Amino acid sequence: MTDRPIDALDRAKGRKVMIKLKNGEEITGVLKALDLHLNLWIDEAEVKKDGENKLKLGTLLVRGDTIVYASPVQI
Amino acid sequence: MTDRPIDALDRAKGRKVMIKLKNGEEITGVLKALDLHLNLWIDEAEVKKDGENKLKLGTLLVRGDTIVYASPVQI
Amino acid sequence: MTDRPIDALDRAKGRKVMIKLKNGEEITGVLKALDLHLNLWIDEAEVKKDGENKLKLGTLLVRGDTIVYASPVQI
Amino acid sequence: MTDRPIDALDRAKGRKVMIKLKNGEEITGVLKALDLHLNLWIDEAEVKKDGENKLKLGTLLVRGDTIVYASPVQI
Amino acid sequence: MTDRPIDALDRAKGRKVMIKLKNGEEITGVLKALDLHLNLWIDEAEVKKDGENKLKLGTLLVRGDTIVYASPVQI
Amino acid sequence: MTDRPIDALDRAKGRKVMIKLKNGEEITGVLKALDLHLNLWIDEAEVKKDGENKLKLGTLLVRGDTIVYASPVQI
Amino acid sequence: MTDRPIDALDRAKGRKVMIKLKNGEEITGVLKALDLHLNLWIDEAEVKKDGENKLKLGTLLVRGDTIVYASPVQI
Repeated sequence: MTDRPIDALDRAKGRKVMIKLKNGEEITGVLKALDLHLNLWIDEAEVKKDGENKLKLGTLLVRGDTIVYASPVQI
Repeated sequence: MTDRPIDALDRAKGRKVMIKLKNGEEITGVLKALDLHLNLWIDEAEVKKDGENKLKLGTLLVRGDTIVYASPVQI
Repeated sequence: MTDRPIDALDRAKGRKVMIKLKNGEEITGVLKALDLHLNLWIDEAEVKKDGENKLKLGTLLVRGDTIVYASPVQI
Repeated sequence: MTDRPIDALDRAKGRKVMIKLKNGEEITGVLKALDLHLNLWIDEAEVKKDGENKLKLGTLLVRGDTIVYASPVQI
Repeated sequence: MTDRPIDALDRAKGRKVMIKLKNGEEITGVLKALDLHLNLWIDEAEVKKDGENKLKLGTLLVRGDTIVYASPVQI
Repeated sequence: MTDRPIDALDRAKGRKVMIKLKNGEEITGVLKALDLHLNLWIDEAEVKKDGENKLKLGTLLVRGDTIVYASPVQI
Repeated sequence: MTDRPIDALDRAKGRKVMIKLKNGEEITGVLKALDLHLNLWIDEAEVKKDGENKLKLGTLLVRGDTIVYASPVQI
């Protein structure tokens, strides 16, 4: 079967991902769930902007239309 | 059944949530209802921007397309 | 029956509401009608921006996609 | 029958209306026709921005998605 | 039959129109064709911004979602 | 048959076109293919911004919703 | 069969592409998969902005609606 773009993220469920938002913020955390709109459920989420200190937020629902790109974090 | 991203917020009904808006404002309050567009009904709502004093607004209907992310507040 | 987010506003028909717009303006007035797009018919409408003097506009049709949030005014 | 928000404007056909646009411009003129997207046909249209001199444009088709709000002008 | 807003422009086919764009540019030219998305085919098109010199472009396809308003030019 | 706006561009396939983007950039190149969303396949593409030096990019897929207008280049 | 615009990119699967984003960032990497929304799965991805140092991100899911244009890199 052909790969779909969303599979790049779907395979990262349960692992740490980095998300770049249109407002410039970056979120890192564990990907719990995603849907076709790219809405994301992130656990152990941390938010930062322009290298500033991180804000720890725990569980987070990120709206898909606010995302620029998302990337599984390399270990 | 597989979790959906919106479940991260759906389970927080009746509890306090923090919402980050695209205009930079942050809203905190008790989540009363939500729908698939991520429109939110918030009670005991407070709005602040850039750490300024809070504006108490009581009941609030937040339009889903103005939300960046939403997070159940940790206790 | 479960509450929907729009019910937070629907129950305020005939009462005074405050509406925050994406362009930064705030509108107050009596909510006459609303639809699922959050288009609003406001009577006795007043518009202000950044605490400036209010502009009295009477009857107003507010386009739903320009709204950040709307709130029944507490008495 | 219940009022719809668009009725606030539909009843103003043939009368003068004021329209606030997302780009900050204000249009006044006689409302000739409207549709559910809030596209408007304005006759005897005048456009101004930030209190500057008006530009007289005659007949105008205003795209609905560029409108913040529209208001029948009080006499 | 009731007039539709787009008729304000449809009747101007073959005549000169002025188009205001969301990026602040103004286009004048002869309206050749239009569709319901307000995509426009303009011939003998000229583009200007903030009163600067005009750029002559000949045939132009203007994307409907970039238009603020369009107006048949009065003679 | 009535002309459609997109025909203004469709007839320019195989010829040089100029495309103005919402981010202010201008692209010139040979139009290879287009669809109803105004997505464009451009060959021998060159990109410039504010009169700066051109960047040669070869084959380019331009997303339709980023286009302000497109014009066949006059010879 | 007639070419579609997306074919310009589809044929570049397995090869290096350059992607220009609406937020000004540029991404380069190997195109693994794409869909009709122009969502892209990029491997060996590098991100840069305004000529600054590159950020290596590995696997990346780029949201289609954040893309201005995409181009197979010439060798």
